[in-house]
Amino acid sequence: MNKSQLAIGVFDSGMGGLTVLRALRAALPQESFIYLGDTARLPYGTKSPDTVKQYAVQMARVLVERRIKALVIACNTATTAALPHLQALMPDLLVLGVVAPGANAAVVATRNNNIAVMATETTIAAQAYHRLIHEKIPNATVSSRACSVLVALAEEGMVDNAIARAALQHYLTDFIDEDTLLLGCTHFPVFKPLLATLIPEHVKIVDSAEASAVALQAQLVQQGLLNSEKSSSGNVQYLVTDSVNRFQAVGEIFLGASLARADIELVDA
Amino acid sequence: MNKSQLAIGVFDSGMGGLTVLRALRAALPQESFIYLGDTARLPYGTKSPDTVKQYAVQMARVLVERRIKALVIACNTATTAALPHLQALMPDLLVLGVVAPGANAAVVATRNNNIAVMATETTIAAQAYHRLIHEKIPNATVSSRACSVLVALAEEGMVDNAIARAALQHYLTDFIDEDTLLLGCTHFPVFKPLLATLIPEHVKIVDSAEASAVALQAQLVQQGLLNSEKSSSGNVQYLVTDSVNRFQAVGEIFLGASLARADIELVDA
Repeated sequence: MNKSQLAIGVFDSGMGGLTVLRALRAALPQESFIYLGDTARLPYGTKSPDTVKQYAVQMARVLVERRIKALVIACNTATTAALPHLQALMPDLLVLGVVAPGANAAVVATRNNNIAVMATETTIAAQAYHRLIHEKIPNATVSSRACSVLVALAEEGMVDNAIARAALQHYLTDFIDEDTLLLGCTHFPVFKPLLATLIPEHVKIVDSAEASAVALQAQLVQQGLLNSEKSSSGNVQYLVTDSVNRFQAVGEIFLGASLARADIELVDA
Repeated sequence: MNKSQLAIGVFDSGMGGLTVLRALRAALPQESFIYLGDTARLPYGTKSPDTVKQYAVQMARVLVERRIKALVIACNTATTAALPHLQALMPDLLVLGVVAPGANAAVVATRNNNIAVMATETTIAAQAYHRLIHEKIPNATVSSRACSVLVALAEEGMVDNAIARAALQHYLTDFIDEDTLLLGCTHFPVFKPLLATLIPEHVKIVDSAEASAVALQAQLVQQGLLNSEKSSSGNVQYLVTDSVNRFQAVGEIFLGASLARADIELVDA
């Protein structure tokens, strides 16, 4: 088998990364994917960077054992805690995160250099988005909001009820001059419809999923790893570290499509 | 050292069990405690019973290695998933959960045999409270609400803001004839003040923490394990599997008292 025909590994703390998978599949329909959700240990966003780094290495190893040509860390927290470490640990594998593509998309979107970042506690504390945005726009104003509660709401499918509204309003307090809202957590795109009703019309919502898909495509082309069998249609296999039933039920919220029970396999991390 | 002078082990998925520790200390001031919070893998409430059982065994072993005379599972989800298993695995150790004492307290409190249970998804799915209440009151009406989002809110210290209010109102929908509200998750006592403003005045709020303290005291007396050195005042040692700083900050919400950094030790599960 030609290396370009291997699948692309995608991992996340749980289900949120399915928003990234969705964007990757739309951009790269002929590619196959193996998605690994560490549902036994989610959420990552309130855990310490060292713990998340350790989990990320374990997850990457599970995927590498299945033979993959590239690895996408579809979780902002894990990208922030582990991307350079994983790249150093696996020098022969193309390893991509979602933070740099998201930061770049926000830099492109803003007109007044005022960017708000909504992310988890660990991602915000690491200031990863701040650093990357300031590399491109040194005088940018980046305001951040640690929104860990949104992860729990998204996982419960509460994306458009009174609790979600109260939570978004809470996190949007002090939102003043920003013209760009960067969703720095893969769980948050599910709140986009409700968010759009709560922020001024001129504010652009940027999420890293689509930006990551574009970045991955470019890298695959550059490294000669794009699956050239354009007639074929890729398939997706799902691996989870906890309840298959819950992944199926909740995962559909993030994937925006139905998930077949037979495609989901329980693995031991 | 006499066995009765050993500490009592208390474990929880994270910080919620500190509400139980607080009640235990109030009831048994001369006892020493070792509290273990599995903060690296919280929350347990949305994980499968098998995963929670596996984690509970690991946690119990960490505490047994430190020498304890009794073990309290200060987590409803872990009690439901692992209590009989741990009792069978450690026949020489007094092992107590929080579910039976909570159910008994609700049975004593109700006048009209209509009891509402608020708990996590896994606890509700296991029907543990239902079974125990029905053993005592066969014709009881037990309505249940899986309130996983409240765990995230409590862990963020959001116990009395607009989000907490919207969440409680959401879970109290359809609350009609119940005269007793059983808080079947150790995180939930922190919502008591806000809950009291949202439910009818005659409804009694029952939480398992105080009931568990009474049950433990009785068992210690029965087994001759009560620390008889009444002049002494017990101490508490805290073990956590993730960030000491976060445990200290968030833990104080549940403990209702300050936590000294020096008393908290990071352990590897």
